[in-house]
Amino acid sequence: MYCITFKKSSNHEEIVIAKGIKCILYIPSIIDSEFCSFALSYYAMSKQKPTIPKGTRDFPPEMMVKRNFILDTIRQVFQKFGFQPIETPSMEKLSVLTGKYGDEGEQLLFKVLNNGDFLSKAPQSALDGGAKKLSAYIAEKGLRYDLTVPLARFVVMNQNDIALPFRRYQMQPVWRADRPQKGRYREFFQCDADVVGTDSLLVEMEIILLLKEVLNRLGIVEFEIKINHRKVLEGICEAIGKAGEMNALATAIDKLDKIGTNQVMEELANKGFEPQSLEKLQTILEISGSNDEVVTGVSKELNKSAAGLQGIADIKEILTLLDEIENGTDKVSFDHSLARGLSYYTGTVFEVKVTNVDIGSISGGGRYDDLTTMFGMPNTPAVGISLGVDRIYDVLTELNLFPSSVLEASRLLIVNFEDSLRHVLPILVRIREAGISCELYPDSAKLKKQFSYANKKNIPFVLIVGEEEINSGSYTLKDMHTGDQRNVTLEQLISALNQ
Amino acid sequence: MYCITFKKSSNHEEIVIAKGIKCILYIPSIIDSEFCSFALSYYAMSKQKPTIPKGTRDFPPEMMVKRNFILDTIRQVFQKFGFQPIETPSMEKLSVLTGKYGDEGEQLLFKVLNNGDFLSKAPQSALDGGAKKLSAYIAEKGLRYDLTVPLARFVVMNQNDIALPFRRYQMQPVWRADRPQKGRYREFFQCDADVVGTDSLLVEMEIILLLKEVLNRLGIVEFEIKINHRKVLEGICEAIGKAGEMNALATAIDKLDKIGTNQVMEELANKGFEPQSLEKLQTILEISGSNDEVVTGVSKELNKSAAGLQGIADIKEILTLLDEIENGTDKVSFDHSLARGLSYYTGTVFEVKVTNVDIGSISGGGRYDDLTTMFGMPNTPAVGISLGVDRIYDVLTELNLFPSSVLEASRLLIVNFEDSLRHVLPILVRIREAGISCELYPDSAKLKKQFSYANKKNIPFVLIVGEEEINSGSYTLKDMHTGDQRNVTLEQLISALNQ
Repeated sequence: MYCITFKKSSNHEEIVIAKGIKCILYIPSIIDSEFCSFALSYYAMSKQKPTIPKGTRDFPPEMMVKRNFILDTIRQVFQKFGFQPIETPSMEKLSVLTGKYGDEGEQLLFKVLNNGDFLSKAPQSALDGGAKKLSAYIAEKGLRYDLTVPLARFVVMNQNDIALPFRRYQMQPVWRADRPQKGRYREFFQCDADVVGTDSLLVEMEIILLLKEVLNRLGIVEFEIKINHRKVLEGICEAIGKAGEMNALATAIDKLDKIGTNQVMEELANKGFEPQSLEKLQTILEISGSNDEVVTGVSKELNKSAAGLQGIADIKEILTLLDEIENGTDKVSFDHSLARGLSYYTGTVFEVKVTNVDIGSISGGGRYDDLTTMFGMPNTPAVGISLGVDRIYDVLTELNLFPSSVLEASRLLIVNFEDSLRHVLPILVRIREAGISCELYPDSAKLKKQFSYANKKNIPFVLIVGEEEINSGSYTLKDMHTGDQRNVTLEQLISALNQ
Repeated sequence: MYCITFKKSSNHEEIVIAKGIKCILYIPSIIDSEFCSFALSYYAMSKQKPTIPKGTRDFPPEMMVKRNFILDTIRQVFQKFGFQPIETPSMEKLSVLTGKYGDEGEQLLFKVLNNGDFLSKAPQSALDGGAKKLSAYIAEKGLRYDLTVPLARFVVMNQNDIALPFRRYQMQPVWRADRPQKGRYREFFQCDADVVGTDSLLVEMEIILLLKEVLNRLGIVEFEIKINHRKVLEGICEAIGKAGEMNALATAIDKLDKIGTNQVMEELANKGFEPQSLEKLQTILEISGSNDEVVTGVSKELNKSAAGLQGIADIKEILTLLDEIENGTDKVSFDHSLARGLSYYTGTVFEVKVTNVDIGSISGGGRYDDLTTMFGMPNTPAVGISLGVDRIYDVLTELNLFPSSVLEASRLLIVNFEDSLRHVLPILVRIREAGISCELYPDSAKLKKQFSYANKKNIPFVLIVGEEEINSGSYTLKDMHTGDQRNVTLEQLISALNQ
């Protein structure tokens, strides 16, 4: 590899080749054309600030530590509830990904070019046939779009090795070629927990307990967990004389919060829902009160729909199971208008909202009993939830809930004076042995520069070991928040850092 | 979304459409051609077992928990040494990635197709010009190839916000379209720690201490950390009369371990190294003994090379700094034949080998002072190391060093008897409140099935709460390793699980 540096002088720009081939410009015979074009393209590049792809993000340290606080919290709770981690490849075969996300979703798949001479398999007709036709020949892999389809694929491929019911969690990035906008990225993390292989409603109860514990540990106290059941929606369709129109109904009432009742009714009218159906629907949607009251009210309306009654029975069972636990149904509400967008749900659906921040839901999920069927493994009911890290991040920021300790890069910075180096190295080691994160400034720079480094990295304590301190055997410890300084022995230092 | 299940009967296969559109087959008028082709492609897919792309891997739970043990250990040590995490996007612009990895590396980049109509920007000449020409028009992004170039890009883009010297760590997957083979994957994790913005050799000392602590915590005791310096190699070139041929020398002696001295000499002879140079080289390479002896011996040979003596001086300083620390130079050896393949190193180079497992190096790194220059930010010296998770995984497996506790999915499984459900739910909650991972089998399946689930998931304890136990208030706890059963109260249970 060549390496080049550029120097700007007053009236011209001069290219200087560095490291090993420093004098190459002065020996014109060995500058070949390949090297010249290389040098020029480097030169051009060095004038241009590098950027990252649209819709993607760098996570600098202060964001990473906060994100890790969220991810670690979620992971700990997942594990406490017996969920086991898996990871799947970032790339999946397009044959696995296509046909799963609907037409709109499919257009958002990032496709990866085949390696090497990717055109070798493409006939001329494909080259002339436009992007859609060509892409089938030149790209056979795509980036993961969510964690649910990979889970289904994983379960099918590993059905003989995994313990069913399979409680798995997965925390990995997914990619969608969506139009980037505030809060919507082309690469983002999903944290999913799913149980595959049982239709027991105990799992729904577990998921609600799990959500509560995650929120509790994150310090979020004002929230609501809404539950509903796709069969309740099916029942509502039957009750209003629109059997079989569940998808239309679900898509519309999913927006109740955003656009209000009137617009939802208008949308349904446009989809062919007659006035008397809409009137009936409105009556049903207006049922409100305690969970018991809503259950009773909705049951009455759906009393002729077998599906509807089954849905209500499931909801009742989940609430009854939660009632066995102290405060189990606290903040859990049956909301018969909850739809959730994804069409693959077949049973219960969940949604979590933080009630004192205006931000939409931070988690959602539901029961989907047919996903592995797509890969040839029928009769494998599943239920799961997904937690949105970006939204949770925004909530914790707005409510100021990140513990200040997560922001500390190190607990202690030891100031570097050249003369005391020998003396401080054993202290550095001793403090780390006590399990405390600690660093020594690498250069004997000015004290001000070293302090400003500590401030920038949020390091709460700085240790000064100068000549005086070496002689006395007691060091100066500065608290960077208060500005206080005091003399400490090594033992006092460690106990101060441990507080 | 449509959902389909397939039933096989004795003499024919029958397609049954499920969920919401169950009877659709009996109303031929609404089966349109789009739906038919959809149904048939699903049918075909369901006959075919899904697979994952060549060279990629699924990580099932038992691998994940072991990998997480390694990653968590590394992360903790990184943090204790004051390194801060960053993450960069999986996709980088190709303009950032190209020109950094040499021709061979560049061919291994995975390229991502532009979104939407990717052909719209491609002129007909590009369509006729073959894959290499076309790809410039249809793919502007590539998957991350390593973590070092993204770091350089990150530092340049964020130079005003980060605290320099910047101690960062990064643990993310990278992708290379290499020919897959045993132990070589197309997607794999790298764990890098780097310090950017100082030429202090204290950082080299820190990196050696960090490597030792990582290995120590992983339980690896038989290892060797080799260090060398690119300027020592430069000095050797000068001493043998081959000044400026460092890359040729480095590439060849990098293989000393693998192919032996004779073949290395043959390779160099083919590259134009004269017999007297090779003879001299052999004399230098044969210098051995303690670090002090090698330093002295090599110094003598390089006494006419300014670069060589500078390299030796740096190595001596690092060893002197380590000597200030108890056992600091233990297992650290100066190996003047260590080269490391990467051409961007400009100073010290490191390599870690486990000496009781035949597996190659598990970590490597070095000083590279010109990487940010490529993005227009000169004078930013840097040094770092990379730990290979896959190799470490193999070492820990071979030496049987994974703690058995990491394999436990949950600490306790509570058996599900339908009659005792109400009674066990509060126990489940109570045990989790004590910070212990615990799960309840979701179905009231046969006892044998529930036990076999516990075994498959490596759950060490099973709790049985039947009618008898409810009446007595004392539960049966089974130790799955020994098979022992005993009666315990709730308090005894928690204390048993905490052991």
